[in-house]
Amino acid sequence: MEKGDLLYEGKGKRVYRTEDPEALILEFKDTATAFDGKKREELDEKGRINNRINAFLMDELAAAGIPVHHRRVVSDTESEVKALDMLPVEAVVRNVVAGSLARRLGLEEGTELDRPVFEFFYKSDELGDPMINQFHILAFGWASREEVDRMIELSFRVNDVLVPLFEAGGMRLVDYKLEFGRFRGGLVVGDELTPDGCRLWDLSTGEKLDKDRFRRDLGDVLEGYREIGRRLGVDL
Amino acid sequence: MEKGDLLYEGKGKRVYRTEDPEALILEFKDTATAFDGKKREELDEKGRINNRINAFLMDELAAAGIPVHHRRVVSDTESEVKALDMLPVEAVVRNVVAGSLARRLGLEEGTELDRPVFEFFYKSDELGDPMINQFHILAFGWASREEVDRMIELSFRVNDVLVPLFEAGGMRLVDYKLEFGRFRGGLVVGDELTPDGCRLWDLSTGEKLDKDRFRRDLGDVLEGYREIGRRLGVDL
Ligand SMILES: Nc1ncnc2c1ncn2[C@@H]1O[C@H](COP(=O)(O)OP(=O)(O)O)[C@@H](O)[C@H]1O
Ligand SMILES: Nc1ncnc2c1ncn2[C@@H]1O[C@H](COP(=O)(O)OP(=O)(O)O)[C@@H](O)[C@H]1O
Ligand SMILES: [Mg+2]
Ligand SMILES: [Mg+2]
Repeated sequence: MEKGDLLYEGKGKRVYRTEDPEALILEFKDTATAFDGKKREELDEKGRINNRINAFLMDELAAAGIPVHHRRVVSDTESEVKALDMLPVEAVVRNVVAGSLARRLGLEEGTELDRPVFEFFYKSDELGDPMINQFHILAFGWASREEVDRMIELSFRVNDVLVPLFEAGGMRLVDYKLEFGRFRGGLVVGDELTPDGCRLWDLSTGEKLDKDRFRRDLGDVLEGYREIGRRLGVDL
Repeated sequence: MEKGDLLYEGKGKRVYRTEDPEALILEFKDTATAFDGKKREELDEKGRINNRINAFLMDELAAAGIPVHHRRVVSDTESEVKALDMLPVEAVVRNVVAGSLARRLGLEEGTELDRPVFEFFYKSDELGDPMINQFHILAFGWASREEVDRMIELSFRVNDVLVPLFEAGGMRLVDYKLEFGRFRGGLVVGDELTPDGCRLWDLSTGEKLDKDRFRRDLGDVLEGYREIGRRLGVDL
């Protein structure tokens, strides 16, 4: 599998072509960003740790029958993935109130939700990733009705797999973000599943182990990421 | 029908009890407000004109088989309505991009939508009526799944009635806000249908005839409201 041209570079990853038109190489960068890229820092090792955690979680989803883009780790910071036609939306599932939900609805962080909440956002740094719903997606042609339903269904199935997995490691999966893309006529979970896009709290102390440490300057960010990996049993 | 105690007073209406526990009197005030009540002005005649337009539009919906709270006009500024157990959400239908949708998604006002867009908002002046979706409504117990589906269904049926009605008067129904309440086990369209809660543009010139004249200081607000009434054939 030879690494070809850089296809595009985002805030957290670089995407390269390969000789296989259906495969890409995803390189996890050490750069940490928040607030639509306004806050930024280099965190030594982040790329390597995220690449490992992502592979582990994607493999767990695949084992549960959920279609994922991840194929295999190809280096410390790189993985081979299916080349997807990405949908320009983010899917968020929340089990506990935190972040923008707390702000928008004036709720206290940490409030347990009676049932998980699903939210769509439009992927746009300039617009600050505004919240949207299924009707915006249909009116602007960002996905079909079947794809909307499928994203919701798959996002909740991911929750059913990940909540007990993290719980077994003494962690509460507060919320997470998924991206989806088209591959051979179906939708596939793409992008990444890492502490950059999840909120994970220690089950007993409530300590934040995820990117909120970076967003809120709570101290050693990478130590939180490593702790998540260790608790999951990921070979870091 | 005797007017009893003031039950509550909102930004645009006063609600009174009557001797019938299933009936209320809605009094349309002359007060105009915008930006969650931060901008405010007294507009002579607004209460009377809105009471008439509201009665006319509610009667049209009722004639089309849509359950509405309006029963009858009882004075210049008052109507008798069914006493509803209001849901704390607003339902918005959009046919053309304007207002907060233009801002949120960075779109030009006036862009026609390929299909109407439906949006839920949580009724809260303090929070600035944040956008929500069906999952927030279910998680916080604001309505049942059946009620969510019913609000969406009724909101689009209202569109099917109102769009041609306004078009016949040379007006484009750009968007509108509905509120729903429970009455004898079913959902009913409550609150009001007036230029305070709709955007209406002249079909050929694009001139704004609705509350945006007030929000944006575009000039004689009440003349716009009167023009809407005249074009609908409402007896003002
Ligand atoms: N399997 C895939 N195929 C194609 N593109 C992908 C795949 N997985 C992720 N991407 C895209 O790679 C880009 C780079 O990722 P990232 O650095 O997270 O970008 P961003 O700054 O937009 O968050 C994103 O646009 C993401 O949607
Ligand atoms: N049929 C009804 N039964 C009970 N309450 C109603 C009915 N119709 C409207 N209301 C409520 O009357 C209140 C006053 O209306 P309004 O002045 O528009 O209030 P607001 O300032 O909240 O917009 C609102 O809370 C509205 O939901
Ligand atoms: Mg990203
Ligand atoms: Mg109101």
